[in-house]
Amino acid sequence: MKIRFGADYYPEHWPRERWETDAKLMEEMGLDVIRMAEFSWSKMEPSLGNYNFGWLDEAIEILARHGMKTVLGTPTATPPAWIIEQSPEILPVDSKGRTRGFGGRHHDCQSNPVYRAHIHRFVTAMAQHYKDNPNVIGWQIDNELGNSHNDLCHCSSCRSHFQEWLANKYGSIDNLNARWGTAFWSQTYDKFEQIPTPMITPNSHNPSLLLDWKRFHSDLIVEFQQFQIDIIRDICKDQFITHNLMGFFGLIDYFDLGKNLDFVSHDQYATGYFDNPQPGKSPQRLGAELDFVRGVKQQTFWIMEQQSGPTGWEILGRTPRPGQLALWAAQTVAHGADTVVFFRWRPCSFGTEEYWHGILHHSGVPGRRYDELKNMISQLAPLMDEFKGALPESEVAILYSYEQNWAFEIQPHHPKLNYTHQVQKYYKALYDAQIPVDFINHKEDLSKYKLVIAPLQFLMTRKMEDKFKDYVKQGGRLVLTMRTGVKNMDNVCMTDGHLPGGLGDLLGIEIKDYDCLRAMDMGVEFEGKAYRSEKWCDIVSPTTARTIASYTEDFYAGTPAITVGKAGKGEAYYVGTEPDDNLMREFIKLLTRISGISSLGKAPEGVELVRRRTSTFDYIFALNHTEEIQELEPAADWQQVLGEKELAPYGIAVFKVKR
Amino acid sequence: MKIRFGADYYPEHWPRERWETDAKLMEEMGLDVIRMAEFSWSKMEPSLGNYNFGWLDEAIEILARHGMKTVLGTPTATPPAWIIEQSPEILPVDSKGRTRGFGGRHHDCQSNPVYRAHIHRFVTAMAQHYKDNPNVIGWQIDNELGNSHNDLCHCSSCRSHFQEWLANKYGSIDNLNARWGTAFWSQTYDKFEQIPTPMITPNSHNPSLLLDWKRFHSDLIVEFQQFQIDIIRDICKDQFITHNLMGFFGLIDYFDLGKNLDFVSHDQYATGYFDNPQPGKSPQRLGAELDFVRGVKQQTFWIMEQQSGPTGWEILGRTPRPGQLALWAAQTVAHGADTVVFFRWRPCSFGTEEYWHGILHHSGVPGRRYDELKNMISQLAPLMDEFKGALPESEVAILYSYEQNWAFEIQPHHPKLNYTHQVQKYYKALYDAQIPVDFINHKEDLSKYKLVIAPLQFLMTRKMEDKFKDYVKQGGRLVLTMRTGVKNMDNVCMTDGHLPGGLGDLLGIEIKDYDCLRAMDMGVEFEGKAYRSEKWCDIVSPTTARTIASYTEDFYAGTPAITVGKAGKGEAYYVGTEPDDNLMREFIKLLTRISGISSLGKAPEGVELVRRRTSTFDYIFALNHTEEIQELEPAADWQQVLGEKELAPYGIAVFKVKR
Amino acid sequence: MKIRFGADYYPEHWPRERWETDAKLMEEMGLDVIRMAEFSWSKMEPSLGNYNFGWLDEAIEILARHGMKTVLGTPTATPPAWIIEQSPEILPVDSKGRTRGFGGRHHDCQSNPVYRAHIHRFVTAMAQHYKDNPNVIGWQIDNELGNSHNDLCHCSSCRSHFQEWLANKYGSIDNLNARWGTAFWSQTYDKFEQIPTPMITPNSHNPSLLLDWKRFHSDLIVEFQQFQIDIIRDICKDQFITHNLMGFFGLIDYFDLGKNLDFVSHDQYATGYFDNPQPGKSPQRLGAELDFVRGVKQQTFWIMEQQSGPTGWEILGRTPRPGQLALWAAQTVAHGADTVVFFRWRPCSFGTEEYWHGILHHSGVPGRRYDELKNMISQLAPLMDEFKGALPESEVAILYSYEQNWAFEIQPHHPKLNYTHQVQKYYKALYDAQIPVDFINHKEDLSKYKLVIAPLQFLMTRKMEDKFKDYVKQGGRLVLTMRTGVKNMDNVCMTDGHLPGGLGDLLGIEIKDYDCLRAMDMGVEFEGKAYRSEKWCDIVSPTTARTIASYTEDFYAGTPAITVGKAGKGEAYYVGTEPDDNLMREFIKLLTRISGISSLGKAPEGVELVRRRTSTFDYIFALNHTEEIQELEPAADWQQVLGEKELAPYGIAVFKVKR
Repeated sequence: MKIRFGADYYPEHWPRERWETDAKLMEEMGLDVIRMAEFSWSKMEPSLGNYNFGWLDEAIEILARHGMKTVLGTPTATPPAWIIEQSPEILPVDSKGRTRGFGGRHHDCQSNPVYRAHIHRFVTAMAQHYKDNPNVIGWQIDNELGNSHNDLCHCSSCRSHFQEWLANKYGSIDNLNARWGTAFWSQTYDKFEQIPTPMITPNSHNPSLLLDWKRFHSDLIVEFQQFQIDIIRDICKDQFITHNLMGFFGLIDYFDLGKNLDFVSHDQYATGYFDNPQPGKSPQRLGAELDFVRGVKQQTFWIMEQQSGPTGWEILGRTPRPGQLALWAAQTVAHGADTVVFFRWRPCSFGTEEYWHGILHHSGVPGRRYDELKNMISQLAPLMDEFKGALPESEVAILYSYEQNWAFEIQPHHPKLNYTHQVQKYYKALYDAQIPVDFINHKEDLSKYKLVIAPLQFLMTRKMEDKFKDYVKQGGRLVLTMRTGVKNMDNVCMTDGHLPGGLGDLLGIEIKDYDCLRAMDMGVEFEGKAYRSEKWCDIVSPTTARTIASYTEDFYAGTPAITVGKAGKGEAYYVGTEPDDNLMREFIKLLTRISGISSLGKAPEGVELVRRRTSTFDYIFALNHTEEIQELEPAADWQQVLGEKELAPYGIAVFKVKR
Repeated sequence: MKIRFGADYYPEHWPRERWETDAKLMEEMGLDVIRMAEFSWSKMEPSLGNYNFGWLDEAIEILARHGMKTVLGTPTATPPAWIIEQSPEILPVDSKGRTRGFGGRHHDCQSNPVYRAHIHRFVTAMAQHYKDNPNVIGWQIDNELGNSHNDLCHCSSCRSHFQEWLANKYGSIDNLNARWGTAFWSQTYDKFEQIPTPMITPNSHNPSLLLDWKRFHSDLIVEFQQFQIDIIRDICKDQFITHNLMGFFGLIDYFDLGKNLDFVSHDQYATGYFDNPQPGKSPQRLGAELDFVRGVKQQTFWIMEQQSGPTGWEILGRTPRPGQLALWAAQTVAHGADTVVFFRWRPCSFGTEEYWHGILHHSGVPGRRYDELKNMISQLAPLMDEFKGALPESEVAILYSYEQNWAFEIQPHHPKLNYTHQVQKYYKALYDAQIPVDFINHKEDLSKYKLVIAPLQFLMTRKMEDKFKDYVKQGGRLVLTMRTGVKNMDNVCMTDGHLPGGLGDLLGIEIKDYDCLRAMDMGVEFEGKAYRSEKWCDIVSPTTARTIASYTEDFYAGTPAITVGKAGKGEAYYVGTEPDDNLMREFIKLLTRISGISSLGKAPEGVELVRRRTSTFDYIFALNHTEEIQELEPAADWQQVLGEKELAPYGIAVFKVKR
Repeated sequence: MKIRFGADYYPEHWPRERWETDAKLMEEMGLDVIRMAEFSWSKMEPSLGNYNFGWLDEAIEILARHGMKTVLGTPTATPPAWIIEQSPEILPVDSKGRTRGFGGRHHDCQSNPVYRAHIHRFVTAMAQHYKDNPNVIGWQIDNELGNSHNDLCHCSSCRSHFQEWLANKYGSIDNLNARWGTAFWSQTYDKFEQIPTPMITPNSHNPSLLLDWKRFHSDLIVEFQQFQIDIIRDICKDQFITHNLMGFFGLIDYFDLGKNLDFVSHDQYATGYFDNPQPGKSPQRLGAELDFVRGVKQQTFWIMEQQSGPTGWEILGRTPRPGQLALWAAQTVAHGADTVVFFRWRPCSFGTEEYWHGILHHSGVPGRRYDELKNMISQLAPLMDEFKGALPESEVAILYSYEQNWAFEIQPHHPKLNYTHQVQKYYKALYDAQIPVDFINHKEDLSKYKLVIAPLQFLMTRKMEDKFKDYVKQGGRLVLTMRTGVKNMDNVCMTDGHLPGGLGDLLGIEIKDYDCLRAMDMGVEFEGKAYRSEKWCDIVSPTTARTIASYTEDFYAGTPAITVGKAGKGEAYYVGTEPDDNLMREFIKLLTRISGISSLGKAPEGVELVRRRTSTFDYIFALNHTEEIQELEPAADWQQVLGEKELAPYGIAVFKVKR
């Protein structure tokens, strides 16, 4: 069965008599799949053990009659009022010690055993009920795990779980004391039971504790998901299990979270959440998120929530311009989505999210958004069957690590330094050059890439050093940056030599001093031209490396900003600062030229080229992110299969190219 | 007896031997009335049941000997330390769950039964004591009700009262669930006891709950006042009861609060509170507040606290320039104050408000402020007797609704959209055109106005739709705006048609799309000229309406920004955006010209004209809000009864005109 | 023994086998003294009564073998986890009622009796152990007392102590009520037990309570230090006791804190804490802090923590430029430090402060910072022996009062008015003129100064008035400013006359009005030229004074901004506003010329001249705070004993001049 497009639907928000109308409109629009029930616990179990699946059965049945399959969410992000009334200890506690109450969602502590027992009972019942329903093709566990849990939970259950997690990790309290360096500020613990979660203190917590807290927190949520996966897998043999991720959301290691899922899904909102700066995310940010989500399992994926109107809670985001909704949906397909489910069919008339708009308006009458997406589906859906499962085959990889991200969240160094943004600065230069990029984690094989960029490798292991060395010696080109090799995995500084530690030989450099660019930036000369850099400067002494860019100011003027060292068949670059966009563009140009990495083609500024590559064909998407008409000059062998050569504002074209 | 001017006085802050001096200075200044005792509970009842009114009796007596009457405040904003020590559960709890302690004022929960019992005992005793005192002419209940209570109170008493209020309103929990839409996020309640007050959750509360919380909160305070009114009315047959409002303060529905008062009073501080931006409120903002306060009961009113020096707690506001204090006092009279009581006689030498200056300085020596106000009183007081009770007779009304305000506080849509500010944008254009304006609430008769402006009629009922239709059909001119007819009174979106719902026919338009102007503004063409608008654009399809202004940019360029539809003998205008000041001025010019509404006259920029109209005469005030001399050109029949034709900086003139 | 330079060292953070290497490097660098153990409680007492001083004995012994003495800190800023586990009531409570937990430092309530008992036991044991160790020369009590305690502690123990402190001060509750003015807002107390600490209320606390809270808080910490001093003095007869202050840190009255110390120490960080604006403190701010610290006991002092690299916790401060570390160390010596201890030997590899850099880098290899400081020590240390104990002999004093500072913290008047900044504005003009300045408190003898500047003498006593009058009558020149004589010591406004109260006669002025310069500044004419002033204008009526500067704008244009009155042999100046830097420079020029105060000499802009004066010689330091080379033109009799005539960027010179 072909499952290309769908919508998120809440039949329980609408009168029973409307359901048939909706199903008919969905069918006419070309939808194949509907996600339901991920927030409907109180509707499915109005009181303890009193299951009420009839309404959902009926909705599934009506949708099926109109040709649509169903994906069900487990509603565990919204424990009902009757559960909270019976067991208020389920409510989460924030780092200031305040219980967060009922009235929104995510009012739960994910380690709480009473809450787990309720989940076990309910999810078992739900899985039993739907395991043989031929119209239910799969499950989504919970919803956007981690959402709203940034500062949660510090309850006594979570504290005990954290202490137990630490006991498992460190074996003995002496080992923990030694590795955390609790000798500092007299923080030595006699037993694991003394260790706090990082609630408010008179000042700051130990950075090793903070990193372990973030690891624990991620592990807890992964385990919370696994707890539900286990229930469903055991009962529902033929239905897939997925979860909807949130791009670069930083609370959970998505590589871990994705591991036991059949595939991952992603929620893509181009205008961002309503409180983000508007008009929203840049096209390259959107591309980066999609490439990252594809990288979680190095597989194609679903979009489980694709923006279909203005977003909004108390504040509204910008209204997507004509063409943008279709463009953004096509972009997700171009980057690896095999199925796109729109959030949502129709905006709710009540509740917190009533201005999070859907395909229809509140009125229920199809309008501009319905027509625009219907038209896009009719053109794109047939093509999607041709390249289902196909990846882009990138020659460049960017390393992404949650632990590095967490370490910089704990210690940003410069007030504006952010790991995820730094990674995206490199991505942007590749994106602008129309070069496909994979995001990979540190466990991936590097050897299939001509170029690997690994920014801010702050926490370092001997194993990772060896992996980098092997990659370069075998002919790879590797880019490392400032703040590499500073610490071990305990978030403790290495003290056995100059920076960048064990990678100094590979890079051919030593770093004995550095300058955090507070209240200043820096000049850099590269290939005879002047650029700026910011946030940080390593003051680099080359041992065997060659300098390819130099600082031009202050007491370290003339010293290297970028170096390259040769090792075996490859090269190892070191970038000691954060280049501005212009320097980054020229540096990436140099790297890709030397590495023999080719662009997908030429396109006007603001037009993105993306590839899905099957064994026989390339499908090249051209996506016009501008509000002007753009002219394409496709290569001679590009056969256009969608759109016009002249791209409308926010227009889409697809070309099929024989390999 | 003539009661035109007065002062707020705290004899308990000063030595007994000073009282006579103060009374003499007051008499010489021309004061008629003194307010006392509204914060003096511990002085009047130093311990339970131990009443001590002697000092106050004496102060009243001394003032009476100097020709002054007394208004007494009930001191319920300041329960004494001995009450809090005995019953700390009276202390209020904020939305973060934190008890707010003793040490300031308003440290009370207004639903708390123990606190109520103390009030009942004390207010009864006080009323009994003063009911027959011929020098006590009236009562002020509490002080600035709602002040400091924005985030209060979430204690268990308030939670119970809220649940009870909901039970009374909705009858059954099923009804509440249906009307609030608790199906969203699984928030269905089994019983009223499960419903929280809107304390911190992991994210946001249901907007229907939030609106009911605001209604409950307002009702609670209104009922708190009524509780005291009932005690006093029962005992004190010949004394009036009032309360001092705070202009556009938003916590309490002042139309409700004013209902059972003999008249309302208002506290007018032109420089604003010390933490407001300085130099303070604009003249039109001051005018709007006064017109609004007059509209609470469509009656003249008292100023119970009129600024008489720099304001200040920890920070000081700007020092009023010579002339400004008299000007501001005259402005309150011009807009409908029959009595003006200055806050305060002399600044306290201790306590939080010691820099909230009074007529005298700390030294107690009369100075610039005393002289200036004494001079103004001597001129204005005699005139005030002529037009006591007279209103301006406006031809334009602006609708003001607390429920609309609350709904926009809950969901501002645009980060800078504010209901009360939006209303004042329309007011400003009328003010600048020297046109008197009434503020009315939705229960008022519209038919007496030529023009009714009703911005942001977000929450809509069938009854209100009919009222608007009737008004227009009978010949009225009505202005409605963006976000009209979006929701029902449960704060739930209407889903049975396009916006603006049932008013679409009257207006002759349909709205199928809109654009929240995030990170942009919009061009508008009106009468061939270009203007800007901001915050929001409805994308309007006229059905029968005529377009009178159009957007000039983006994908909806050329569509209507302002329309007018004819219905019966009248016209209904729709404004789909927030016009800038220039467009507003021109639009109001058009509206008043068409409606045949006349200006009070011409005056230089910065000079305000205001009218008090008796059955035989108009009294036209000319108020110079600038620091320059201004020339007036009064009409031939204007007889000047106060001031010079050449207005001094911050000067005042009054003209008497036979009707 | 000569103790000139040292370092702060944490042997417990490093392997035993490294200690010898460190000691050798220290010796080679020229260090004489090492501070240790001030955060090492859990290492010295891993469980109750189980003392473990062996490691520290060994470290002291190794250092001694390399010629270094030891100063020991009492580790009471870091009660170990086992104490907190047993007695969690030791944890402090903030003003929002939140307990601040274990995990940082300063997690303690300084009034708590259980904590005091632990301290008594441990400090006694430590003192007993080290009393006869010839290599231990002294003690530091705790560390940076008050640090992190700004909002602490509001626990029940602190509340009781506060109430007891009040009972001692006021004798009776009636007296407190009268003096605090609790008649305001009905805050009268029946007993001391009702009085709160200033935790959150619905609005603001009584300013008299707030001032007493700050006094209590300071007294508590002074008494907390005394508690430890008493233990050690009793046991350790031959060792000194000091404490490390933090410049203008405002929580504790350092005049009180310093009283029973042998000498005070100071922690000097020129780039400021990492979250301060960078590049850091200005040279004159650094000079002011040093002069202030010298003024605490009118004695030379130690620097116990002298910056030796970039500062940093989560964020890093700027990297000191080559030369700056040596310059800043020399500046501390120039202003009166007899010993300079660098913080710290080597940055920790773990814990919150791992980016608070030291003399060495993490690698432990000596580098730029080691070399630079070693070189400076080799030149400066010999000279230091010549002028040990010598002071600068200033002719100008600036009065500094904690109580004035606290009163302005409670009521800043203008949002940007700050007592300590105001004081430094006067200091800066003197600093720029190369004139040595003493900071003194109100108990000091004024008569030895030609000029005394006493800004913002807000709280006033009859005794202080007399002191000022006597000083002037005997020939002194006194500068008083706006907001002088406003209140009594209870933080209650004086009401018995015009401002500036009892000093009006001396100054020859009366003030009946004033203007807080909100949203404006003011023009001032002085000696025929135009300047600006800000924040506040007193509107001054001279009685006998002569006007020397006048306002040029607004309704008080032409009235005095600065006056001078003659009394006896001296003059009393009054400055009614905050002059800008230009006016301040010219005003100080006038004052010093008239007073016959001489500059140390001429130097290029950015070069600071400072004097240490012995009975026979002046030692003039020339400190180049710029990054350019600067030429000096020393007087003929200046014999250069350090540096070159041409000062390198951040360079130092010292001249010896026979008196």
